[in-house]
Amino acid sequence: MKIIEVNKRVLEKNDDIASRLNQYLHDKGILLINLLGTPGSGKTTLLERILERVDISKIAVIEGDLYTDSDAKRIESFGVKTIQLNTCGACHLEASMIEEAIYELDLTKIEVLIIDNIGNLVCTAEFKLGEDKRITVFSVTEGNDKPLKYPLMFQTTDILVVNKMDLIRHTNFNIESFKKDVWVLNPQCSIYECSAYRNEGINDIVGILFPSNG
Amino acid sequence: MKIIEVNKRVLEKNDDIASRLNQYLHDKGILLINLLGTPGSGKTTLLERILERVDISKIAVIEGDLYTDSDAKRIESFGVKTIQLNTCGACHLEASMIEEAIYELDLTKIEVLIIDNIGNLVCTAEFKLGEDKRITVFSVTEGNDKPLKYPLMFQTTDILVVNKMDLIRHTNFNIESFKKDVWVLNPQCSIYECSAYRNEGINDIVGILFPSNG
Repeated sequence: MKIIEVNKRVLEKNDDIASRLNQYLHDKGILLINLLGTPGSGKTTLLERILERVDISKIAVIEGDLYTDSDAKRIESFGVKTIQLNTCGACHLEASMIEEAIYELDLTKIEVLIIDNIGNLVCTAEFKLGEDKRITVFSVTEGNDKPLKYPLMFQTTDILVVNKMDLIRHTNFNIESFKKDVWVLNPQCSIYECSAYRNEGINDIVGILFPSNG
Repeated sequence: MKIIEVNKRVLEKNDDIASRLNQYLHDKGILLINLLGTPGSGKTTLLERILERVDISKIAVIEGDLYTDSDAKRIESFGVKTIQLNTCGACHLEASMIEEAIYELDLTKIEVLIIDNIGNLVCTAEFKLGEDKRITVFSVTEGNDKPLKYPLMFQTTDILVVNKMDLIRHTNFNIESFKKDVWVLNPQCSIYECSAYRNEGINDIVGILFPSNG
């Protein structure tokens, strides 16, 4: 009997394109960041707070969404080069879509390209987009059980930003046991705490992503 | 050129199984409820608050998760008949999985079967599971932009439970404009407000689901 592993084949093909894309951007001296998280975790708000603090002429953003362009409009209003990628309902971005997007972008002077991924804690984790770093935004209102329930996202991220720290005192979220769970899955993961809404804890994250900033 | 619409074929096959499943449960006098929402929206906590208020001998629960059985253990501790469905990483449940689960359940005396779906605002909305009613749990911390960004979930739900209302005063969430957006997408949708964590606003939801209760 012949077994066709469709999903595996899709992922392998995607990985090949992701490697090619990473090399292409590496040759141009561009760092690619993949920003992930569940819907409403605060990815775009965090990105806004970061953009307020850096030289935006060196940054471009690819916004991933199912249908809308509201996030792209928010980012574009900062004067940042922005491309909207709509998947027409599909739940994740793939490396081929990023390749298509960058051919539309003028990358002259760009040093950092940021993908603001679709809100999804499952499918987006499976698809490499050629990134040098994965940053996952997680909010304390999502609950302590999520690392063990959605392990791939936490296993594959380089940086974990714990957002909405201003709300922690109104919840039963235990940050210490959360960190323990994350480090069991991913001992190398760097964890930062912030409130993007209250504009708190952002400088440390900017310092890591843009060491030459300020 | 032959075009193979793989996803459409998958969904059509799923819809057929869902119809068969709905008929099977209907013939037994069992109502099937599909509980959906993003990870951390509060589906399982809401379910716990409901179970505290009803005759649990008439209820069975199917817990959907990628790998873990922590939610099933929480529900089973109420003395409710519970089946854990693990997708081994897949992002959604399909009707065939529910069929498999119900053959493992003793449905004698059961009047309401509840599926606590995987946390995902995209893929789970596409797959009918034979339900009579869809209930989507959405928390105010997820932000105002979600109905328009993830329309299918809001278009296909019968009841929308807006959870974590205790946190609304610490956010910029506007409940009136949120409701307007939902009703543009889905004019028939009933919207309830609650805080499952604070055990507030639960009785109205129980009254709709179990009109003969109490």
